[in-house]
Amino acid sequence: MRTSNFLLATVKQDPADVEIVSHRLMIRAGMVRQVAAGIYDWLPMGYRALRKVENIVREEMDRAGAQEMLMPSVQPAELWRESGRWDDFGPELLRFTDRHGREFCLGPTHEEVITSLVRNEIRSYRQLPANFYQIQWKFRDEIRPRFGVMRGREFLMKDAYSFDVSAADMEQSYRQMYSAYERIFERLGLESRAVEADSGAIGGSVSHEFHVLADSGEDAIAICADSGYAANVEMVPTAMPTTTRSEPVETMSTVDTPGQNTIDAVCEFLGVAPQRTIKTLIVAGDESPIALLLRGDHELNPLKAQKIPGVKLPLEFASPDTILQITGTDPGCIGPVDLDIPIIADYSAAQVADFVCGANRPDQHRQGVNWGRDLPEPAVADLRKAIAGDQCPDLPGANLTIRRGIEVGHVFQLGTKYSESMGATCLDENGESVVMHMGCYGIGVSRIVAAAIEQNNDDNGIIWPDNIAPFNVCIVPIGLNRSAAVAEAVERVYSELAAAGFDVLLDDRNERPGVMFAEMDLVGIPHRIVIGERGLKGGIVEYRHRRDTDNQDIPLDTLIDTLTELRSNG
Amino acid sequence: MRTSNFLLATVKQDPADVEIVSHRLMIRAGMVRQVAAGIYDWLPMGYRALRKVENIVREEMDRAGAQEMLMPSVQPAELWRESGRWDDFGPELLRFTDRHGREFCLGPTHEEVITSLVRNEIRSYRQLPANFYQIQWKFRDEIRPRFGVMRGREFLMKDAYSFDVSAADMEQSYRQMYSAYERIFERLGLESRAVEADSGAIGGSVSHEFHVLADSGEDAIAICADSGYAANVEMVPTAMPTTTRSEPVETMSTVDTPGQNTIDAVCEFLGVAPQRTIKTLIVAGDESPIALLLRGDHELNPLKAQKIPGVKLPLEFASPDTILQITGTDPGCIGPVDLDIPIIADYSAAQVADFVCGANRPDQHRQGVNWGRDLPEPAVADLRKAIAGDQCPDLPGANLTIRRGIEVGHVFQLGTKYSESMGATCLDENGESVVMHMGCYGIGVSRIVAAAIEQNNDDNGIIWPDNIAPFNVCIVPIGLNRSAAVAEAVERVYSELAAAGFDVLLDDRNERPGVMFAEMDLVGIPHRIVIGERGLKGGIVEYRHRRDTDNQDIPLDTLIDTLTELRSNG
Repeated sequence: MRTSNFLLATVKQDPADVEIVSHRLMIRAGMVRQVAAGIYDWLPMGYRALRKVENIVREEMDRAGAQEMLMPSVQPAELWRESGRWDDFGPELLRFTDRHGREFCLGPTHEEVITSLVRNEIRSYRQLPANFYQIQWKFRDEIRPRFGVMRGREFLMKDAYSFDVSAADMEQSYRQMYSAYERIFERLGLESRAVEADSGAIGGSVSHEFHVLADSGEDAIAICADSGYAANVEMVPTAMPTTTRSEPVETMSTVDTPGQNTIDAVCEFLGVAPQRTIKTLIVAGDESPIALLLRGDHELNPLKAQKIPGVKLPLEFASPDTILQITGTDPGCIGPVDLDIPIIADYSAAQVADFVCGANRPDQHRQGVNWGRDLPEPAVADLRKAIAGDQCPDLPGANLTIRRGIEVGHVFQLGTKYSESMGATCLDENGESVVMHMGCYGIGVSRIVAAAIEQNNDDNGIIWPDNIAPFNVCIVPIGLNRSAAVAEAVERVYSELAAAGFDVLLDDRNERPGVMFAEMDLVGIPHRIVIGERGLKGGIVEYRHRRDTDNQDIPLDTLIDTLTELRSNG
Repeated sequence: MRTSNFLLATVKQDPADVEIVSHRLMIRAGMVRQVAAGIYDWLPMGYRALRKVENIVREEMDRAGAQEMLMPSVQPAELWRESGRWDDFGPELLRFTDRHGREFCLGPTHEEVITSLVRNEIRSYRQLPANFYQIQWKFRDEIRPRFGVMRGREFLMKDAYSFDVSAADMEQSYRQMYSAYERIFERLGLESRAVEADSGAIGGSVSHEFHVLADSGEDAIAICADSGYAANVEMVPTAMPTTTRSEPVETMSTVDTPGQNTIDAVCEFLGVAPQRTIKTLIVAGDESPIALLLRGDHELNPLKAQKIPGVKLPLEFASPDTILQITGTDPGCIGPVDLDIPIIADYSAAQVADFVCGANRPDQHRQGVNWGRDLPEPAVADLRKAIAGDQCPDLPGANLTIRRGIEVGHVFQLGTKYSESMGATCLDENGESVVMHMGCYGIGVSRIVAAAIEQNNDDNGIIWPDNIAPFNVCIVPIGLNRSAAVAEAVERVYSELAAAGFDVLLDDRNERPGVMFAEMDLVGIPHRIVIGERGLKGGIVEYRHRRDTDNQDIPLDTLIDTLTELRSNG
């Protein structure tokens, strides 16, 4: 491709109102343009990267034996009523009526459509296992679309659905998809992690998320370098401490803490560490409100709180009115002493001696408080989010580190959640009718493009991994319109590289070299070749990888071989 | 691919409520399933064919220098208000509001979106010519979707939009697309025709349709074998007859024709040829109704009628009330004698002597009527649809034949229709701001799949052209589970064909041979290889092309070479 025939829509200035680097760079590199909130044009530069991601995903799905098909974007309400999700799904499900007044939605996902198809088409275990996938634009009416294509309303998904005659077979299908996903992210050239995850609204039991690691990621991931363990932080169990609690030393007293309403402020004011404080959260319960206690430096994990018997679902914090009624004060001042509701303490909180906590009176705290002396020994449970340094659940003695990640894939063992409600059965080997076991497997194809940029960029722009770069190589000629030798060499190199299977962008605009260098850096092409008259006299061209700062001279004769080698090394 | 791992969803019985052969065969061959009216699942078998069409279209668009991109399906109302089409477009434009109450539509076409993009991104003639295309699912809320994917509501389109600095450059871009379309249909392996067409609601001046020829086609196409002329019948001018009108022989009289209300019935009753009758149609005019006269064997061409000065637009036939007021009778009995409104006769109608026509009285006709004697010589115009045998407009003396076609492509010179209303300008070579000239170019990708089947089928099922067949070759083993020799040969041939680039379907289900033959015929795989123990003893396999009735023996040794040759011969 030549820049003279290609929409190189680079932008010099940073756009306003963008919050993350991939959004900024996708606009500046001329990859996307917003048409409406969360809805984008993919310009030729962006679409090339998107198609490369899409094709890698397709090849690996095919290799794993999944069958590509396509379901409609516009889905009839009846199917969603059958599964119960027409009512359960929030306003993210965009609903409308056609000209005859029939109800439809724009599909954000396709469990209903595929289950309806499969219940009609598959009758026997002999047709199983079967795994159907599609790569398709979906719509989710986000209340506040942001972060560019990272959380848009229209987005490109690969979604696959497996069907099996038994739970054991479903697990086998799940493992195949898990392996295919590992190959996909390997080929994309992205540092990524599969992590244990909560299966949330989609349902089912086992699930894993696939994250592209990036410091800007929304999700926290706990990783153990020693055991290989990786999980979304919300999924990590935190073990009961093995040490015994210190004996009480202090006497309980009440101190004035005027205007000190946060843990940090109280710690500073009283000169104690956050590890020596206890915070009290009151949540709604089935019968009465329940107090959940955490060490001051820990955070509540809502998923764990929801599993405590008696806690009302979904988790809901008690209102200031309720708290006033129970404690006689407001949420910033409460504490467990003399609190007349059920109390459950996180394992770590139950281990603290001589602690500081709220006094259930404004501007006062208690200190020197001790379990079993000043208040009863609490019921204990695992309530908190894991933090860096916590023990690995799989390998005692090993510690967790916390990384940030962007969720770009999610695989679920659905079991019979949809097949049961929609009546997707088949005959098993004994001629008995059984409900099929399903798995579902998503990849956010358009989101991967943004995630790749979040992971790979510098001050000058994007740095594409080879396999998903819009172009692998750019050729920047110096003095194209002044030198016949340059023009000849440029055309020859361009043709030879194209013939060798490289996607080449030739900048034939006769801009100043500095302008061309800056634009090629901004759009992130991994391999840059500069061809000028001076080098040609010595039979060489200048090469630079986008990650490097120094040029290197390469003889024209060996250019193709050198680039082929550089590309295969990633 | 093996049938044991592939959703072969063939259906033995013809489905109810299907009107055309492609719809019937796409269901029977397991290519599509309806999800809602005009909305389909594309099953793996159908999707493979669709992807092959899509890829040929993409390759030829790229070769022609067009740049692939993608615009959103969900489009904001504001853009359509700018072009004026939010109000002009009928209920086929599906409109809805998002959760914030903002108005959107599902895009049936993308002139507004691309024009909005280009006006922001292209500022100079140096960036032109530019041609942007996308391959995308679109939605049109047809009032009565029918004919399967031939006229569905969701459909896959390739739409391209060219931008040029002048009308002359636009014509050049148009010619490039025209040539690309010729290559596309050539590669698809379909008998097709480019025809002159009306540009209709999209606007602009010059346009051509691309038709796949099939007896079941909705459109009539006039073709001249001698001159190469081809046009949609509605676009064909019919020449003024060069012969002179016969002198009157008969005297005008009125005859009783009780109950004879059609041309055919009157001709039969009176023993005259339809060519000797004149029919009268009354249409609304700007000032008064206007009578349009045609020979009894001719049909009105509404496009031509709309070009007659004084005829009200859009064309509208006079109501029975109006006709009663003008003629004193009902529409079935009217005639031009003593008719007191403007009369315009088609050229051919003005050439008839001693003709029969309505008498403006029930159950009576006039006969022996003559222009210039019984009524004034009429004003004349070209009003009728061309018919087989009419003279070619390009080559006097040559005759037209009429073929049926399915419109699968349409190219338009839009000129400045959208760029003017939406302000898409750029600077020309002199630094002056000029409105860009646009072309737009559509191909109905999903419709081509159905059209290919309409053109290529027999009583047993589909007959795919090689380049768009879901699979090129099928292997039908005889006694796969009984013979180790068969199993070994089948696996070897399967691997070798796959390695040689064929898409192979191996039927490994151990069905009876008759069942397998019937299913492979139904799904239309062009090349069939039968491998059995008897043949293997002589080192041969049986080959049959889907169009042939006889098998032919091919030595196993030369099978790949033979198939490669057969495929390249189409």
